[in-house]
Amino acid sequence: MNRIAVRAAIHIAAVFAIYLSVAMLLPAAVDLYYGNDDWRSFAFTALFMGGLSLAIALATQGRTPPANTRFGFLLVNFLWLTLAIAGAVPFMTSSLQLSVTDAFFESVSGITTTGSTVISGLDTAPPGVLIWRSLLNYMGGLGVIALGLFLLPFLNIGGVSYFKIESSDIEDRPFERFQTFTVSLIGIYTTLVVTCAFAYAAAGMTGFDAVNHAMATLATGGMSTSDTSFMRYAGEPAILWIGTTFMFIGSLPFSIMILFAVRGRLDALRDPQIRIFAGYYVVFAVAVAVYLSVRTGMPFFMTLSHTAFNFMSIISTTGFASDDYTLWGPFAVACIFVATFLGGCSGSTTGGIKAYRFLILFELLANGLRRLIYPNTVTPVRYGDRSVPPEMQSAVVLFIASFFVIWGIGTILMAATGLDLVTSMTGVLTALTNVGPGLGPIIGPVGNFASLPDAAKWICSAAMLLGRLEILAVLVIFTPTFWGR
Amino acid sequence: MNRIAVRAAIHIAAVFAIYLSVAMLLPAAVDLYYGNDDWRSFAFTALFMGGLSLAIALATQGRTPPANTRFGFLLVNFLWLTLAIAGAVPFMTSSLQLSVTDAFFESVSGITTTGSTVISGLDTAPPGVLIWRSLLNYMGGLGVIALGLFLLPFLNIGGVSYFKIESSDIEDRPFERFQTFTVSLIGIYTTLVVTCAFAYAAAGMTGFDAVNHAMATLATGGMSTSDTSFMRYAGEPAILWIGTTFMFIGSLPFSIMILFAVRGRLDALRDPQIRIFAGYYVVFAVAVAVYLSVRTGMPFFMTLSHTAFNFMSIISTTGFASDDYTLWGPFAVACIFVATFLGGCSGSTTGGIKAYRFLILFELLANGLRRLIYPNTVTPVRYGDRSVPPEMQSAVVLFIASFFVIWGIGTILMAATGLDLVTSMTGVLTALTNVGPGLGPIIGPVGNFASLPDAAKWICSAAMLLGRLEILAVLVIFTPTFWGR
Repeated sequence: MNRIAVRAAIHIAAVFAIYLSVAMLLPAAVDLYYGNDDWRSFAFTALFMGGLSLAIALATQGRTPPANTRFGFLLVNFLWLTLAIAGAVPFMTSSLQLSVTDAFFESVSGITTTGSTVISGLDTAPPGVLIWRSLLNYMGGLGVIALGLFLLPFLNIGGVSYFKIESSDIEDRPFERFQTFTVSLIGIYTTLVVTCAFAYAAAGMTGFDAVNHAMATLATGGMSTSDTSFMRYAGEPAILWIGTTFMFIGSLPFSIMILFAVRGRLDALRDPQIRIFAGYYVVFAVAVAVYLSVRTGMPFFMTLSHTAFNFMSIISTTGFASDDYTLWGPFAVACIFVATFLGGCSGSTTGGIKAYRFLILFELLANGLRRLIYPNTVTPVRYGDRSVPPEMQSAVVLFIASFFVIWGIGTILMAATGLDLVTSMTGVLTALTNVGPGLGPIIGPVGNFASLPDAAKWICSAAMLLGRLEILAVLVIFTPTFWGR
Repeated sequence: MNRIAVRAAIHIAAVFAIYLSVAMLLPAAVDLYYGNDDWRSFAFTALFMGGLSLAIALATQGRTPPANTRFGFLLVNFLWLTLAIAGAVPFMTSSLQLSVTDAFFESVSGITTTGSTVISGLDTAPPGVLIWRSLLNYMGGLGVIALGLFLLPFLNIGGVSYFKIESSDIEDRPFERFQTFTVSLIGIYTTLVVTCAFAYAAAGMTGFDAVNHAMATLATGGMSTSDTSFMRYAGEPAILWIGTTFMFIGSLPFSIMILFAVRGRLDALRDPQIRIFAGYYVVFAVAVAVYLSVRTGMPFFMTLSHTAFNFMSIISTTGFASDDYTLWGPFAVACIFVATFLGGCSGSTTGGIKAYRFLILFELLANGLRRLIYPNTVTPVRYGDRSVPPEMQSAVVLFIASFFVIWGIGTILMAATGLDLVTSMTGVLTALTNVGPGLGPIIGPVGNFASLPDAAKWICSAAMLLGRLEILAVLVIFTPTFWGR
């Protein structure tokens, strides 16, 4: 790693921080509109952060960075950390005056589209702060899609990309192609958010809530404008099903939408991870709906609208809740716990282990068992109609193994701050998978992370960033190889 | 899989069932000595089971089985299932009159050296039943060492074996060598049990308790003669340290002892898994001892004798408890939870993930991270001074991945029987790792598995067998390839 690369990474991060500063003008405008004095803090922070970022960007201008994998990893880490820090400032300067710890946690939670919160009293919080949280979700979602589609697959992490597979296109006119894809991505993503907002509003949400929730829905982020999340819409199935639908869309690989927009092709829908993801989602939602109907005597359609919403929320790693599902009985709670690991598709805004990894894992397992009997047979590991290259096989199993090791270490560290086992275990888990709520008496769907010790908040913040960057992209920074030569 | 192989597997299983029937004469003798009428049940069962096994053995005599891996897998599964079923019979015929479910659970728990129990009132249970439980531990321990040293490594499962590495010796005079090793194994193992029993007795246990606990200690089994396990020795550090020492010995690869006895060589001590195992054990025991001293003000030496005992008990997958460690505070409980996954060395009586897998996993991770930066470098994955063959790398990661998948599915199934999350989660976990106690209000160190629903007991029994046979050796039986052609 040389000085040019670090300098270039700082430059790019500073440019993105300028964008983020410009975005702070939106909460300023919203606060001004609602007559809230916080607009001054947002406007001032926007100016200050914008000026600072501009100065850094200018100071670090210079030679083109090396186009190698090391630079890719450095940039990704730098970018997310910078945006998390810059995004935290408005929480400190606003009338909520969050501490450094709380502001950083909230910003990380937003930008990683986790949706956990340390703010109690959201229902009476200044509108600027609320829109800033949703905006962080929105931008974080956009960032992670770009990451998953255009960057991570080329670093051999984070799964399959139709753009990598179709490398002939990219080699053709790489930059032009990349621009087309980026413009389509922003366009499609924003169109979906706007559509979702209109749908929410049509189903009865206020305009403000609809816009905020739409951003948090498509980003599978889960920031809400109320401490009770979607529980106030518990009696409105239309809103729940709209939420379920758009969370589902947010869990699909965005390549589908982009390829459809750019070329009118829908063949990316054949991506086998979609079947796996939809498969385990349907099994959980239906099984628990049946269980709840039997348990409570409520009609299946009613329990289904809640299990469909809440399991989509957990599996898409959004984290909204339409009900306190910790009271649904042991079977449902165990299903929620296991569902927290799963995640959606690669190239989407979801976190967690993700469907394509399970698919490759089962292929590897079937293969490995076959080889126990016939040690000399070599059968390729398949993903749909393609074979999975060895470096991706290795990335999949190493992700899963390091996921569980980090989860174990994180659980012990959380417990060392004095938290009970279930809170420690599910707190780190929900952070690592970017879901949002945990289980237990404190951080469940009706609670939040406000009362956790500062140390626990830093542990969760680290876990959220690790999870968002697919673990390996962070771990690689800490190897001697990375900094060597 | 052909008829000859199945027939041969049944034959061998029947022969071992004869041994098991003969072993039932020991509890008969003990009951007779203590004047307990149960001696008739044991003697009758021994005769009946012995006769039946003999008949089956004679009826299935015949051609030599094929010496291939399929036969190896079939035999291993057959053997453990047969012994579990045969071992269950005395629990039903004795005065305790356990149900089929309870008897099978108790027998599986014994033979897999797990040590979980469904019997309440052990302190007043007939001595024959107590010695039978310890004897199942003893025999199960012997069986699993033989499995881990002589069979699984040749099936490319279950780790490193010094006997596989030194294959030149084996190819030389395989059968003779094998006999020498088996005789040494039984001799050393039994000598260790006898030594441990004398040490326990010298430190103040009654002779009966000393013999029982010695068998359960070396087998890292954990069957006790009291509902309170080692809590009645809580004030006797000598007994606790003897237990700690012999559980440690039971966690080491038995090849060390055998090679020392057969050749006077101690170089197997250099096996790197020993360092890893001892390393994580010491970290846990010392960290929690410090924590407890700070928390309670008790002297470090006192807290250490308990953390040393209980963490050795958990990590060696024995399952004795000298105290209700669920009351040690959140940090300690989280450490206990994580320690339940770990396990000792391959070629020992321990269960769990085991030290050599962690070692290989970290090597793979370091390697994988290096290759993210330099995709074309090929560095061998090392285990000590040897390189790990690809099929073992694959078995390690597939074991870990399927371990967690099975744990997740098992947790959901347990919860479906109505058990709370912590009981479901730790119940399956402690069964899968052959530890013994779980966490939570029911199956913790002061509780037992008696009150669980029958379905939960069957789930745990299956998990114990899966864990004991290193998961993959069971899964392979359920593949079409296994039964094909």
